[in-house]
Amino acid sequence: MSLLKKKIISEVKNDLADIEEAVKNNLNPYFDLVSDIASHILFAGGKRLRPLLMILSAKICGNTKKDSAAISSIFEYLHTASLLHDDLIDDASMRRGKPVAHSIWGNAAAVLTGDFLLARSLSIATKTGIPEVIEAIAEITEYMSQGEIFQLMNKQRLDLSEKEYMEIIKCKTAVLFRGACRTGALVAGASRDKKDALSLYGMNLGIAFQMADDLLDYTADSKLLGKKTGADIREGKLTLPVIYALNQADSKDRRFIETIIKNKDFNLSDFTNLQELLKKYKSLSYTKKIANDYVEKAKTSLDIFKPVKARETLLDIADYAMVRKT
Amino acid sequence: MSLLKKKIISEVKNDLADIEEAVKNNLNPYFDLVSDIASHILFAGGKRLRPLLMILSAKICGNTKKDSAAISSIFEYLHTASLLHDDLIDDASMRRGKPVAHSIWGNAAAVLTGDFLLARSLSIATKTGIPEVIEAIAEITEYMSQGEIFQLMNKQRLDLSEKEYMEIIKCKTAVLFRGACRTGALVAGASRDKKDALSLYGMNLGIAFQMADDLLDYTADSKLLGKKTGADIREGKLTLPVIYALNQADSKDRRFIETIIKNKDFNLSDFTNLQELLKKYKSLSYTKKIANDYVEKAKTSLDIFKPVKARETLLDIADYAMVRKT
Repeated sequence: MSLLKKKIISEVKNDLADIEEAVKNNLNPYFDLVSDIASHILFAGGKRLRPLLMILSAKICGNTKKDSAAISSIFEYLHTASLLHDDLIDDASMRRGKPVAHSIWGNAAAVLTGDFLLARSLSIATKTGIPEVIEAIAEITEYMSQGEIFQLMNKQRLDLSEKEYMEIIKCKTAVLFRGACRTGALVAGASRDKKDALSLYGMNLGIAFQMADDLLDYTADSKLLGKKTGADIREGKLTLPVIYALNQADSKDRRFIETIIKNKDFNLSDFTNLQELLKKYKSLSYTKKIANDYVEKAKTSLDIFKPVKARETLLDIADYAMVRKT
Repeated sequence: MSLLKKKIISEVKNDLADIEEAVKNNLNPYFDLVSDIASHILFAGGKRLRPLLMILSAKICGNTKKDSAAISSIFEYLHTASLLHDDLIDDASMRRGKPVAHSIWGNAAAVLTGDFLLARSLSIATKTGIPEVIEAIAEITEYMSQGEIFQLMNKQRLDLSEKEYMEIIKCKTAVLFRGACRTGALVAGASRDKKDALSLYGMNLGIAFQMADDLLDYTADSKLLGKKTGADIREGKLTLPVIYALNQADSKDRRFIETIIKNKDFNLSDFTNLQELLKKYKSLSYTKKIANDYVEKAKTSLDIFKPVKARETLLDIADYAMVRKT
């Protein structure tokens, strides 16, 4: 584990324990099957990053009430619902080092458990009695499903632009990060400035986080990652490293990349060649640079807050987005 | 078309036009694919019963504002989302006389369009600014997904009880009817008595409606129904006619019914034999009687309202639940 990760974990140890309890409690008292399926993925070593962002956002605005952990489980459930439906859509086989839910319980159970977690999120949001929180959750679910649909529509589209890619990752990932941070501010009853600053932090962090994720799909160690590398291109998902390479490549290299995109049964040596091309055309460093810019933007938006502990942790998390290995 | 259906349609002609417009408008301005898939099922001759119930419930409480149509589309979207996910789960082939969405666009698009319609419902609910409406929608989604999961868990379970069956149909169907009627009352700013009366009407009507649906699966004309009869038992879904017959049958007949439940590749003559057994053990008339009792309960709960036109239509709709052929 990196030093930064160790530092963050020691700073949020108690919050993580509260989140763990809330994620468990808010599932009760539901049917065993729901709990089994939801738990399979909910308790498989997820980072709890989204609920954590909510709690830290509440703290940076002066809220220290423990009950924000209960609300924060919304963001883990929304994330998990989306993973359950995504894995089915992508026909993935592994997630967090375990077989995906639909391969164990079938498509039906995976779809319905996702629906259930979405419904639970909504119920918990409703119980806050804060209209803006409910609006934030409605907005998140709408953007996320649109982002996923947009991504699906654009699979294997060789001329997907960087702008379209940005739109997809904002919808499918960053809006949830933004909503988590914004909800923290709302729960704390923060001023408009602070709400906006945290929304901006969340949005930019989410963008950077997804870009780092897309990089890891080409650079990570499969064992650490808990799933195969190269999954994106196998599913026809064009991410920034490939989009950039396609734009930079000479016609021969471009044709090779296009062949891989069109043929999901490419072999390991094809994938290694693709990785070499991404290096040759500086796609990985380009993606990293753009992601780093978003990390910096995220950090800058926290300037308006006093240097409290939660601020330091949020800054650390922003840095961590780019150094993480999983 | 039956006389009763003609009468109802002439009474609600304008409301149906308003609903049609709202269902269309609330889909804009979204990606073409979403609209295509959603429209495939949304505009395939659905009865718009759920939005209609909401509008009539608002009217019976004195609300005549046209904007309740916009809110009513929530209930068509929730219903459609559930159909999209159900058809995928049941691996159905036909719905409303057309191939199901997932067979045309694939599982992924069907799952995501369902998610999108759920999210849209939530957004529209949020925009009403009425906390009780939002709570009602949250409750509906939670119950519906639980009902579906409970149904899935109990597929092919030979000892499913009548009580468990009731629990499933309440969750998966009746709660949505209840929520639509209750929302009508809420939009109209009705008194607690009226809200409760309409909730009760919706719940009991929903139960009767689902029972009639379950009967149609054994008695309808496939062409009129727009899908194959016998679908429930082929999917391992035990409904009241079969549950009752299993309890009444002698051991030989019982073994035959059990064999059909366990073997989804039964042939037409097996299915005809099953239909004969359901008649022999008076399962169909028993189910019809129970459903009729719920229709009567639904109608009685409208006693507290003045004899306005909306009340007459709601009473007609309750009667229609049992005479419909599709």
